[in-house]
Amino acid sequence: MGGVAEKSDDDILAPTLGWGWFIVHRFAGILAGNVRLRESPAAIVLHDTLSDNIARMQRFADSHGKNLRPHVKTHKSVEIGRLQLAAGARGITAGTVGEAEVFANAGVADIFIAYPLWASGTKEQRLRSLADRTKLSIGVESRAAADILLAALGERRAAVSLIVEIECGAGRSGVAPSQAGALARYATELGFFVAGVYTYPGHGGTPGAREHAARDQGEALTEAVRSFDAVGLTADVVSAGSTPTAEFSTDRVITEIRPGEYVFNDGDNLRLGACREADIALFVAATVVSAQEPGRAILDVGSKAIGREGDPDRGFGVVAGLGYRLHKLNEYHGYLRLPVDEPQLPVGTMVPVLPNHVCPVVNSFDELTVVMPDGGCEMWPVSARGRLN
Amino acid sequence: MGGVAEKSDDDILAPTLGWGWFIVHRFAGILAGNVRLRESPAAIVLHDTLSDNIARMQRFADSHGKNLRPHVKTHKSVEIGRLQLAAGARGITAGTVGEAEVFANAGVADIFIAYPLWASGTKEQRLRSLADRTKLSIGVESRAAADILLAALGERRAAVSLIVEIECGAGRSGVAPSQAGALARYATELGFFVAGVYTYPGHGGTPGAREHAARDQGEALTEAVRSFDAVGLTADVVSAGSTPTAEFSTDRVITEIRPGEYVFNDGDNLRLGACREADIALFVAATVVSAQEPGRAILDVGSKAIGREGDPDRGFGVVAGLGYRLHKLNEYHGYLRLPVDEPQLPVGTMVPVLPNHVCPVVNSFDELTVVMPDGGCEMWPVSARGRLN
Repeated sequence: MGGVAEKSDDDILAPTLGWGWFIVHRFAGILAGNVRLRESPAAIVLHDTLSDNIARMQRFADSHGKNLRPHVKTHKSVEIGRLQLAAGARGITAGTVGEAEVFANAGVADIFIAYPLWASGTKEQRLRSLADRTKLSIGVESRAAADILLAALGERRAAVSLIVEIECGAGRSGVAPSQAGALARYATELGFFVAGVYTYPGHGGTPGAREHAARDQGEALTEAVRSFDAVGLTADVVSAGSTPTAEFSTDRVITEIRPGEYVFNDGDNLRLGACREADIALFVAATVVSAQEPGRAILDVGSKAIGREGDPDRGFGVVAGLGYRLHKLNEYHGYLRLPVDEPQLPVGTMVPVLPNHVCPVVNSFDELTVVMPDGGCEMWPVSARGRLN
Repeated sequence: MGGVAEKSDDDILAPTLGWGWFIVHRFAGILAGNVRLRESPAAIVLHDTLSDNIARMQRFADSHGKNLRPHVKTHKSVEIGRLQLAAGARGITAGTVGEAEVFANAGVADIFIAYPLWASGTKEQRLRSLADRTKLSIGVESRAAADILLAALGERRAAVSLIVEIECGAGRSGVAPSQAGALARYATELGFFVAGVYTYPGHGGTPGAREHAARDQGEALTEAVRSFDAVGLTADVVSAGSTPTAEFSTDRVITEIRPGEYVFNDGDNLRLGACREADIALFVAATVVSAQEPGRAILDVGSKAIGREGDPDRGFGVVAGLGYRLHKLNEYHGYLRLPVDEPQLPVGTMVPVLPNHVCPVVNSFDELTVVMPDGGCEMWPVSARGRLN
């Protein structure tokens, strides 16, 4: 959403005002004696940046006449979901039944599980229960899955909308756009209400690909809507991704967007030009636990905290303000390579780590440490942490 | 521990009796109507294999006169920790204060945090509390960390043992072996009891490297013990890793071993020859949620379930019994490439996925689905899931 130009990695490595502000802010917290801000590893959220991100995406959606249905897989936090709804979001998007349950239990009244569910195991009963508690929409991309949903939901299917997933070039799940109508017709004959179509332009997540993926997405959704028309159905919902592509998802055919990462942003979105440094709302607080030799420091942030998202060359995360990269991870160790001719990081130094991909990071923590505008902090539970099925 | 020869990847891809047994067993559970065994994604543990693994490692340790102090970072399960202690384990190893707390709360009386802790934030108070509840040992590898531990523990330091971490060739944390005595002397003068030395031969985790890393480990520990002698101290505890190197960690100098992964084993240990197929006790149950084109199936197991452990070439996991690899992951999608001239996997097919590295997998789930010898199943909480600090 930032609309900034593509950035080279070297730009990102440079210390900037934004990072410096964060570090000052954080250490002000330490001086104020806030024990939670001396904790690591911890997921630190800057409340004012979070609020700005939520407001900006809502303004974007409003100004283009789209509904905003944020994907909660990124934050898995009831508190943040409530901020999004209060700002004007139409409802939320979930990736699993478990995520939907957490938000339904918190009173969210309109939930779309944007995933091609196979409704077996405990999901049968859980979906029936969800349908009683919230306005529930479910993704579908095969006749077999529609059959299983019918078996699971029975009479409750009248309370549920199906939304047909189409594939728009990402090589992901979903029917070909031209086949959307036929599947919708099939599900309609099973007694389901089919509300429309959705897709995810996952191929917009590499540098330079955002506009292209968004264009593919618009064309695919347009074709899918036509295939609904061809079988005498109407696609009321025409739903698009994603944080990297949102700013280009302005086709008239699109009725809603489902970005997730924009609440926090991350290194990947920064590299893509999908956010500015000042829009990054989440860091992982880390402490140097080993500094035995010049040129190397080991942090207490490993694969269990930030995920193995990245590779040794581009790194698994970067120290904000300093630019040092984590080039190797163990479960509880993160290895930084430092220039030997620069000041080293002694044991005990706390640093903020910018992850490449924020979603798995949040899912690693039970709580978010939210730095409030007054410098205090609140602990917010990652309410739907895990909840993989 | 299996003592089998190094295996090529092709061997692993072949269907075998072991996997076939698992699949039959699992689907017997389904036929018996056990809803928990129709659930995905789920972490399925075979109780009889788990029990065999625990007993075999204990026999190995006993027969070589070593104490066994299993690392609980792998299972994070109080139930499994109790099985290990009941089988004869001396105590447990933890990687974080949070893990230690969970097991201390469950009554485990002897806990070693084998990590170079920096005792700041809430860790100050939490370590004091732990020292009151369990026999606590803590890793240390710098004077600064010893100073901070002194500040955190105060008078309680008398109830805590420090164990000096040495580096044995893995490029990990730890002092040079020759420096162990000097650090032990420093900590002793701060009023700590220093019980000995520990190391982790992390460079034994690549094929063919196990014996070599274990030899490095033995030499480094021997030198560290000598450096204790040189300053007039005794290293009572001489502690070694790890599942891949355990069977070679028989040097007389070693008093205890700290393997973790042996309870479950995984694809990495299988490739290393550190276990047999029949020793694998954990699989991730997955369901095909998309099968739009021949040669590809998408599972509901993505990076949030099995972690991004691996790479596109060797894969992020393999379907047991079939050999198909996950070559790409999204958060909730795992992509399988299938031979187009073989039977495809239709939507709704359940398959067991063997992960490369089991530790992050367990940490992804709130519960383990434990298949009991009678074919029933129990849900065991992953009690220390998360608990990263």
